[in-house]
Amino acid sequence: MTTSLSCGVSRRILLSTMALLPALIGPLRTVSVLAQTDALPSWNDGPAKASITDFVKRVSTQGDPDFVSPEQRIAVFDNDGTLWCEQPMYVQLAFVLDRVKAMAPLHPEWKDKQPFKAVLEGDMKAVADSGELSDWLATARHPRFNRRYTEIVYQPMLELLAYLGANGFKTFIVSGGGIEFMRPWSEQVYGVPPEQVVGSSIKTKFEMRDGRPTLFRVPEINFVDDGPGKPVGINEHVGRRAIAAFGNSDGDLEMLQWTTMSGGVRLGLIVHHTDAERKYAYDRQSYFGKLDKALDAAALNRWTLVDMKKDWKRVFAFE
Amino acid sequence: MTTSLSCGVSRRILLSTMALLPALIGPLRTVSVLAQTDALPSWNDGPAKASITDFVKRVSTQGDPDFVSPEQRIAVFDNDGTLWCEQPMYVQLAFVLDRVKAMAPLHPEWKDKQPFKAVLEGDMKAVADSGELSDWLATARHPRFNRRYTEIVYQPMLELLAYLGANGFKTFIVSGGGIEFMRPWSEQVYGVPPEQVVGSSIKTKFEMRDGRPTLFRVPEINFVDDGPGKPVGINEHVGRRAIAAFGNSDGDLEMLQWTTMSGGVRLGLIVHHTDAERKYAYDRQSYFGKLDKALDAAALNRWTLVDMKKDWKRVFAFE
Repeated sequence: MTTSLSCGVSRRILLSTMALLPALIGPLRTVSVLAQTDALPSWNDGPAKASITDFVKRVSTQGDPDFVSPEQRIAVFDNDGTLWCEQPMYVQLAFVLDRVKAMAPLHPEWKDKQPFKAVLEGDMKAVADSGELSDWLATARHPRFNRRYTEIVYQPMLELLAYLGANGFKTFIVSGGGIEFMRPWSEQVYGVPPEQVVGSSIKTKFEMRDGRPTLFRVPEINFVDDGPGKPVGINEHVGRRAIAAFGNSDGDLEMLQWTTMSGGVRLGLIVHHTDAERKYAYDRQSYFGKLDKALDAAALNRWTLVDMKKDWKRVFAFE
Repeated sequence: MTTSLSCGVSRRILLSTMALLPALIGPLRTVSVLAQTDALPSWNDGPAKASITDFVKRVSTQGDPDFVSPEQRIAVFDNDGTLWCEQPMYVQLAFVLDRVKAMAPLHPEWKDKQPFKAVLEGDMKAVADSGELSDWLATARHPRFNRRYTEIVYQPMLELLAYLGANGFKTFIVSGGGIEFMRPWSEQVYGVPPEQVVGSSIKTKFEMRDGRPTLFRVPEINFVDDGPGKPVGINEHVGRRAIAAFGNSDGDLEMLQWTTMSGGVRLGLIVHHTDAERKYAYDRQSYFGKLDKALDAAALNRWTLVDMKKDWKRVFAFE
């Protein structure tokens, strides 16, 4: 699972570095109010939308042979590329790179060694704790859309999160990104509280320091919530199998398999990035969000394939 | 933190062995309906009860200077000795010992080596998966009270869980015991769903086996949710600090410190086992549920000390 970035940092280290970033963020955006007549107004009518509404109707209608009691209605969502834009690079990586740039003058030694190790070893934590993540999210702009990163979330997926919630589902985000990076803003942006966020993490320890209870991170990977790690993370955090899973890349393959191959009516869905005009188009050859094995598996397992160009009336709320 | 049992198994191995046990259990008991006039009818009036109701009123009354928004109302409960009886030994240990006894005829080699290593290495998992935990909980009896283990839960604490829930709290169980041991019955017995249970665990991996997505455990400790592990477990699973913590032993010390020493109005509470007549009396010298350092810390930090004999009108529902 470990692939190398051109700048010499592996995905594993990248994900782990990302996990270093706890912070508090102010209100960012709220989920749009849904139209009363259509819970998924940004979705075009078609097989993708129908597969969602059909599934939700079956599992939430008492008396239906496929009815599922509310406490079992667990839905899991990948984040990067599924709920928000992961191009031209993961948002968390953009944050890390910006921080490295900003901190470089204070670290002349970075000229000679790559800075990610230092970041991993804790400089970044102090930065994030001091509110830098909050400041960055409030000011940094996506290079193509010139919008704050918390605005480049997919409007159809926000509607889907809210629609499932309104039908008794408990929704979880299960991301390869850092759990501490997502939790500060997941509630404001997605309506998903921090305790329903699963992600990669760095080992953490507790100590009384100068009489104050303190959690601190040690430079060691705790958990990589990617690929085969996703079912493990779900089992650890949720304790039951989901009945619906949403992803967009090979990193979501095992989560989709584990969710859908368990008997009973299940929904597996893959967001396929086919819209170069409004967004990006990529799949089998992409570095970020490569969709290859999972694309084959989608056909084999009859997962819903969302053709963004055809199936989404609009991609972002600001359109 | 590692102490030795007379039979030669450390608490660390014990907790880890306990974590091996996933199972499905049928309905066991439901939380009693509360009296309309008093949400805590099994609590005698006194400083302990008053400290609870005062705290809850302050944090849940809009306009009160100590008001806390509902999503921040997180309460964490230890399990053994706090929610149910841990004497004469941890329930999970009783289960493991019974299983070892039942399996011994099939394992003549256990005469020469202690069986816990074998149990840890997976025999127990197959047993638990096959529904043995469910069967055991349905039939095994506590040696003193001659009741099923799921009946020797503390009625005043069930009322407290429900009272907090009715006042907008989200309640979590944070136990040194195995997460997989508790989850199958936590909802029926305590009203706490599996995703709100934190506990010790064994490393788990994912693999496709014969075309089926499979989670399997490897004989390696993943996490020990005891002592300084409890704040770490809360941070990992909940992602925010609790504002109320309930425990009964030194294994809860750090959880209580981390919860209460964070500014703002907080509730720390220790159940002190003072009632030899109706239950057991033990503290500083006990092997299970030793309460020594945390007893001193309770005085220092002004945590509520529940004197079971004085403060609880009744201990169990069946009284």
